[in-house]
Amino acid sequence: MKFKEVIRNTREKGPLVHCITNYVTVNDCANMVLASGGSPIMADDALEVEDITSMCHALVINIGTLKIGTIEAMIRAGQRANHLGHPVILDPVGVGASDLRMQTVLQLLKEVKFSVIRGNISEIKTIYEGSGMTQGVDAVASDKISEDNIEEAIKLAKALSKQIGAVIAITGAIDIVALGDKAYVIRNGHSMMSRITGTGCMLTSVIGSFCGANQEDLLKATAAAVSTMGICGELAYNKVQVNNEGTGSFKVYLIDYMSLMDGEFLEENAKVEMR
Amino acid sequence: MKFKEVIRNTREKGPLVHCITNYVTVNDCANMVLASGGSPIMADDALEVEDITSMCHALVINIGTLKIGTIEAMIRAGQRANHLGHPVILDPVGVGASDLRMQTVLQLLKEVKFSVIRGNISEIKTIYEGSGMTQGVDAVASDKISEDNIEEAIKLAKALSKQIGAVIAITGAIDIVALGDKAYVIRNGHSMMSRITGTGCMLTSVIGSFCGANQEDLLKATAAAVSTMGICGELAYNKVQVNNEGTGSFKVYLIDYMSLMDGEFLEENAKVEMR
Amino acid sequence: MKFKEVIRNTREKGPLVHCITNYVTVNDCANMVLASGGSPIMADDALEVEDITSMCHALVINIGTLKIGTIEAMIRAGQRANHLGHPVILDPVGVGASDLRMQTVLQLLKEVKFSVIRGNISEIKTIYEGSGMTQGVDAVASDKISEDNIEEAIKLAKALSKQIGAVIAITGAIDIVALGDKAYVIRNGHSMMSRITGTGCMLTSVIGSFCGANQEDLLKATAAAVSTMGICGELAYNKVQVNNEGTGSFKVYLIDYMSLMDGEFLEENAKVEMR
Repeated sequence: MKFKEVIRNTREKGPLVHCITNYVTVNDCANMVLASGGSPIMADDALEVEDITSMCHALVINIGTLKIGTIEAMIRAGQRANHLGHPVILDPVGVGASDLRMQTVLQLLKEVKFSVIRGNISEIKTIYEGSGMTQGVDAVASDKISEDNIEEAIKLAKALSKQIGAVIAITGAIDIVALGDKAYVIRNGHSMMSRITGTGCMLTSVIGSFCGANQEDLLKATAAAVSTMGICGELAYNKVQVNNEGTGSFKVYLIDYMSLMDGEFLEENAKVEMR
Repeated sequence: MKFKEVIRNTREKGPLVHCITNYVTVNDCANMVLASGGSPIMADDALEVEDITSMCHALVINIGTLKIGTIEAMIRAGQRANHLGHPVILDPVGVGASDLRMQTVLQLLKEVKFSVIRGNISEIKTIYEGSGMTQGVDAVASDKISEDNIEEAIKLAKALSKQIGAVIAITGAIDIVALGDKAYVIRNGHSMMSRITGTGCMLTSVIGSFCGANQEDLLKATAAAVSTMGICGELAYNKVQVNNEGTGSFKVYLIDYMSLMDGEFLEENAKVEMR
Repeated sequence: MKFKEVIRNTREKGPLVHCITNYVTVNDCANMVLASGGSPIMADDALEVEDITSMCHALVINIGTLKIGTIEAMIRAGQRANHLGHPVILDPVGVGASDLRMQTVLQLLKEVKFSVIRGNISEIKTIYEGSGMTQGVDAVASDKISEDNIEEAIKLAKALSKQIGAVIAITGAIDIVALGDKAYVIRNGHSMMSRITGTGCMLTSVIGSFCGANQEDLLKATAAAVSTMGICGELAYNKVQVNNEGTGSFKVYLIDYMSLMDGEFLEENAKVEMR
């Protein structure tokens, strides 16, 4: 299966994606799911999440504005999705930023079987080490992935993948998507993506959409989502540069390009390497 | 009263619209209320909703991300608005998607007198039948209104209107707005409106704004809101087509055109028929 | 220190800003913090706010969609920030609109030492008088600051500043930023800013960002934020006029111009007077 087939499947099947997510970036996440070809449903009351997730094709759990009262909803939805065989994607936003987030992620990992975990390098390291401190919701500078430390980051992704049995996506200047001993290294994207809020959350939602429609190859679906989002970032950056615009327009264009993404264009522009 | 008078009244009076709504589309709803000429106030704590709704001219209740703890606030605000004679508008988002939503809508219908209910055909059918299952928050394909089944949809809207005593707005490819034996059939809008999140929620908020300023004719106010929103969708679609843009820009333009809407232009472009 | 140094410091230091804020405008606030050079973290569960605020450089508390359950989080975060010497900024959105908001602000003022309070004239008056009624979340027309009543507004700002020991920013057609006997009068901005939701909230977030990076002069940092935001409003208005666009585009451009703001341009266009 090629990346273009991943996106074609998503548009043909129109997967329903149940998102339990934060209230900061939720609108952009919903619009990104739609732009990618899926259909989003946001619902986080413990009394309804099992009903909701049952009619969906994928579940995304994002702890960006974690509330103690929502943890039960996350677990119930996750277990129902597990029972039904739906892919379950975790975005451990700022997992190292508070004890509550760390304990919640550890509890989620114990109670729910995740198919994909996507975070920045600091978040993924924190999960791997089962502790540690990240600086807020962004990656710590010393952690940033570059050509110098990429080997180490690939090792981390593969090790965590084997430990949890999930696809691990580490995103940043260079992206890594690993399952067991296989890893994609992806060099799409632009640094301007870190100057708006929610590119990580949006990507995780798109992973939910792509995985919901491509359940037979979650590694490929995740890698395709990472690459597609990166290409949207490149195109959006080019457009704001030409027009002399800023980060407000950049976000709008990011969604534009996701909705316009063409499979052939994706194939031609994906910068992907297997490691 | 003509549609252009509805919008003129809204801009002259600047109605305050109290919205108890979901956190996915709330920002767009607030901006749409402002663009239509009203002023939005979002507040959902049971301890303050009576104070808040008392100073407003209309109340919008939207169950898009329903929390069990907010139901009491919806009822309290609804009853206070009823007591004061304010129009109360319900958006039963995804009412068939969970038992919680279904039971909540049934309870709201029992405790609060609604002036307008706006939903897609699946949601309105679910309310009429008092049960049933819709696919998430979008209309089920088999339910879509077309020229073939429009008679049936008009009958449904009129029957529910008589049963509840409210204006019933069913929106989709073709829109129906009914009160008792009168129904408007509206053919404005564009299918791209379903490719972003929240066009339904935004429309419901604009209905709140128009009804708040035109309390003597809620049927006309609701129909005018539906038609205006549809025309904004047509204009936004034309603009993204010309510019080769996507769904991100489409949402921005939808709000643009609401804020720029001219009464004469509305009259000329409204595609409305009485049935 | 000049305004251009305030913005340069913010971009160089990249302050982390902890925001406990409403769900209506939270995304725009986060993007504005980023556009101004800071990094936002939204977190409002009482169990984690002390951890979160401890790693930040400033705390913003906004009561726009106040929930009774969040008040404890506001107090805990505020007291921790006080203990650490971080600037704490209050946006008393619609403080006169409900008894809950009034009582909450009075409690916050008792339990937390605020560095800056920013509101419209009605909100600031309400706090000064310890009671009163504002019309929703916008300033009451009779309260609007004009050249006729500006003396009175400056007196109010200075009096409240001395009483609380905080920088007081009253924003509207004309803006006043006072600390003790010193007051800036700022004449940047455009009336279109009141036609979108959240310009006040966004400004408060930018104040958080500027104060986090300029803790030695919070009066100057606040005045610089007010002026910068006003200039962004002027530029955004000019652009939508030229392009014949509406309020949707206006909001996008407001964020664009914040992200593009140049220190020299700010100095040249700030319309500031000391009173």
